Amino acid sequence: MKPTLARRLAAEFLGTAFLVTAVVGSGIMAERLSSANVGLALLANAIATGAALVALIFAFGPVSGAHFNPAVSFADAIEHGLTFREAAAYSIAQVAGGIAGTLVAHTMFGLSLISLSHHARSGPAQFFSEFVATFGLICVIWGCVRSRSNAAFAVGAYIAGAYWFTSSTSFANPAVTIARSLTDTFAGIRPVDVPLFILAQSAGACAAVFLFRWLAPGLPAEKVAVGEGPRAGEINKEPVSILEEI
Amino acid sequence: MKPTLARRLAAEFLGTAFLVTAVVGSGIMAERLSSANVGLALLANAIATGAALVALIFAFGPVSGAHFNPAVSFADAIEHGLTFREAAAYSIAQVAGGIAGTLVAHTMFGLSLISLSHHARSGPAQFFSEFVATFGLICVIWGCVRSRSNAAFAVGAYIAGAYWFTSSTSFANPAVTIARSLTDTFAGIRPVDVPLFILAQSAGACAAVFLFRWLAPGLPAEKVAVGEGPRAGEINKEPVSILEEI
Amino acid sequence: MKPTLARRLAAEFLGTAFLVTAVVGSGIMAERLSSANVGLALLANAIATGAALVALIFAFGPVSGAHFNPAVSFADAIEHGLTFREAAAYSIAQVAGGIAGTLVAHTMFGLSLISLSHHARSGPAQFFSEFVATFGLICVIWGCVRSRSNAAFAVGAYIAGAYWFTSSTSFANPAVTIARSLTDTFAGIRPVDVPLFILAQSAGACAAVFLFRWLAPGLPAEKVAVGEGPRAGEINKEPVSILEEI
Amino acid sequence: MKPTLARRLAAEFLGTAFLVTAVVGSGIMAERLSSANVGLALLANAIATGAALVALIFAFGPVSGAHFNPAVSFADAIEHGLTFREAAAYSIAQVAGGIAGTLVAHTMFGLSLISLSHHARSGPAQFFSEFVATFGLICVIWGCVRSRSNAAFAVGAYIAGAYWFTSSTSFANPAVTIARSLTDTFAGIRPVDVPLFILAQSAGACAAVFLFRWLAPGLPAEKVAVGEGPRAGEINKEPVSILEEI
Repeated sequence: MKPTLARRLAAEFLGTAFLVTAVVGSGIMAERLSSANVGLALLANAIATGAALVALIFAFGPVSGAHFNPAVSFADAIEHGLTFREAAAYSIAQVAGGIAGTLVAHTMFGLSLISLSHHARSGPAQFFSEFVATFGLICVIWGCVRSRSNAAFAVGAYIAGAYWFTSSTSFANPAVTIARSLTDTFAGIRPVDVPLFILAQSAGACAAVFLFRWLAPGLPAEKVAVGEGPRAGEINKEPVSILEEI
Repeated sequence: MKPTLARRLAAEFLGTAFLVTAVVGSGIMAERLSSANVGLALLANAIATGAALVALIFAFGPVSGAHFNPAVSFADAIEHGLTFREAAAYSIAQVAGGIAGTLVAHTMFGLSLISLSHHARSGPAQFFSEFVATFGLICVIWGCVRSRSNAAFAVGAYIAGAYWFTSSTSFANPAVTIARSLTDTFAGIRPVDVPLFILAQSAGACAAVFLFRWLAPGLPAEKVAVGEGPRAGEINKEPVSILEEI
Repeated sequence: MKPTLARRLAAEFLGTAFLVTAVVGSGIMAERLSSANVGLALLANAIATGAALVALIFAFGPVSGAHFNPAVSFADAIEHGLTFREAAAYSIAQVAGGIAGTLVAHTMFGLSLISLSHHARSGPAQFFSEFVATFGLICVIWGCVRSRSNAAFAVGAYIAGAYWFTSSTSFANPAVTIARSLTDTFAGIRPVDVPLFILAQSAGACAAVFLFRWLAPGLPAEKVAVGEGPRAGEINKEPVSILEEI
Repeated sequence: MKPTLARRLAAEFLGTAFLVTAVVGSGIMAERLSSANVGLALLANAIATGAALVALIFAFGPVSGAHFNPAVSFADAIEHGLTFREAAAYSIAQVAGGIAGTLVAHTMFGLSLISLSHHARSGPAQFFSEFVATFGLICVIWGCVRSRSNAAFAVGAYIAGAYWFTSSTSFANPAVTIARSLTDTFAGIRPVDVPLFILAQSAGACAAVFLFRWLAPGLPAEKVAVGEGPRAGEINKEPVSILEEI
């Protein structure tokens, strides 16, 4: 039995909020402590984000599947894991959560609540980077489809790596992209650059979904989710076999 | 069968001592080797702490659950995993262990045993950071409630990340906070700032506990603990199914 | 039932492409952000590559075994896990994928598609390094032979470490070596140095295969592969025991 | 059925050789690339060593248990997991392997085969550090006693952390200590300082063994080993349940 939609939306809100807090907050800390050394700042930012993702997928995966990303939720809807109505609701919760995450990070670092970013991220190289980054993210999630702990580690590792191997530092997430337009700090992106980022991310996600339909045709739709683990409803049943949550 | 309380308290003492040794010791080493570069020092401090936490949860989790943190023990008591009397005993062992950890770190680095910190960590941004950090920590632990290895990795990753994404560097632990007031080194905190840190941590932990009551209502109280694994008593039983310790 | 050869080759192509993108792309980013500090650049390059490998083995392992490396595929053929014809087909897909990966990285960073490297990597110390690096890689894969998640983590960790402990930074992969000759950036290698690298890698792989025949004689040939997990064909069968994919 | 002693000794020789190669080689690389920044060099050295350890325990654990450390082998003998005769044979293989590892690292980096270290590591703070480091290492291994993959990750994480939180950088291994006296590079130790390091390591290991007798009395002697996994002899049996190797 799945948890109620309200609970799942709350988990998506909280998880995305924490994810954006991790991205923006560690960027602020990194910039403050390593201002003369952008390489070191990005390394800290990447490690902190990857590590936080691992933890957050474990924290909220049992409730909502830990998507934290509209591209993942809609990809799941295409594969009939969620209804499109649910995917839309997830996305709203994720965007709201992401914005809340920026506010939390700004509050923790004593900054004003909102500051529009002036960090330009545009051009075909950036667009292609976001396509590649999101394509790869969906490949990783689909490949881990039946093991929640593998997915947590694989997604965290993927994002930490993709910070470095894409020129855009791998946003790969429309909700996070919107949230990062509201911070004029290390992790920011100009609001004007957001639409093309989201377009590239959507295209990358779709390409991966259709590739995997051919590449691994039997993936069960029920299980297509980052942190698909034991549902909260199942947690009530005693005894629960440990086998269900490896 | 649970291990005796004496054994569990010894495990909490030792684990918290090693945790504080890792925090304080790696801070001293980092400051010595990277004095001109605070970003590099914090990166080393965060990685060393996160890695040590993973190892320590595996080391002592089978005996005591590897709380190493009064906020976790009392949260567990609220959920009826421990009695409040046990949580109080755990906390005393944790605080004593934390202080011992500072002494061990100072001895290993040839410093005087105790030195009150002059590192100011105060103000609403720091207070809010500790609230967020501890709230997140309890979310992570509650989410991993049924798998000891996942909890070890998730908690280690969370703390390594939270060093960077909170302005307070995420103490998130009253026993560690007290212990860190006794070292005038990189990881220190002024004794006068300790009470508000503990208040913020307690508030964050409570908020997470009550959130999860609604979010994932069926979490079995028996299993609410960081390193809840095979009990030492169970280790005696032969043959033990490997399934119990994944 | 194994996936069709076409699907497995597509997975090897994609996985090797992403691997080279990670190596070359993170090298470009690292060089740009840390130009005065080669140590920091190599650290970022190593962490990004290791993290990406973990994710990619999870992503494509269920389809093709996630070799991404002709040395691994031919070693598997020697042990009768693949036919030599399949190993040759895998290798062609891997080399083509690797070259595609360089093109993707160059495109993401706005560079011209191909640029022959001028990075000299020659001499007996480099040759011996590649022998050792590939020998160790095969030992690690053979040791993890029956667990796909262990292999993902072990191979990622091994490569991240071997970047630092070999003087060649551990290419350990003929397809990746060829692909890296086409980029005049941080991760490049002069085309003229490629043949001896491949020779050393082949010798190291053979030495490890024959060592393990004696050291651990019962390794089942069916299972000799990096990411040997549930086959795509098996994914169709419902219900699939989670036991098959730990 | 255990593998033959010859095979187990070969695995201990190879694993310890690779471990020392990782420690010494990454130290040389780190010093070359980061000469002005000891903090960065130690960070690279610690990460490379921890990552290599994870991989090596997976590689050789199924054959010999992956001790790579006389302190672990004798501790196992005290607990009746090995005979003392076997522990002595393991130790000789480990010391020989460690020395071979130094030679391999020197060869890979184009240095003369042997160079006695001039790196002073003496005094009570260093002695106490090695006691603490080895005490903690045995606690971690004993705590992971029934899961090979947990042990691989926990030991790798522990050592990476302990590089930073002890003033001696946590040798914690007599065979590695001897091997590191033969390299006048970053990771070296003066030969004259070796005996007290070994004494401190032995004392730390014994203290942990006797502590755990009381703390977790039921630890089965048969399983006390770092990488105790499926034995090579068992690998022959078909079908092997995956449950045996989680």
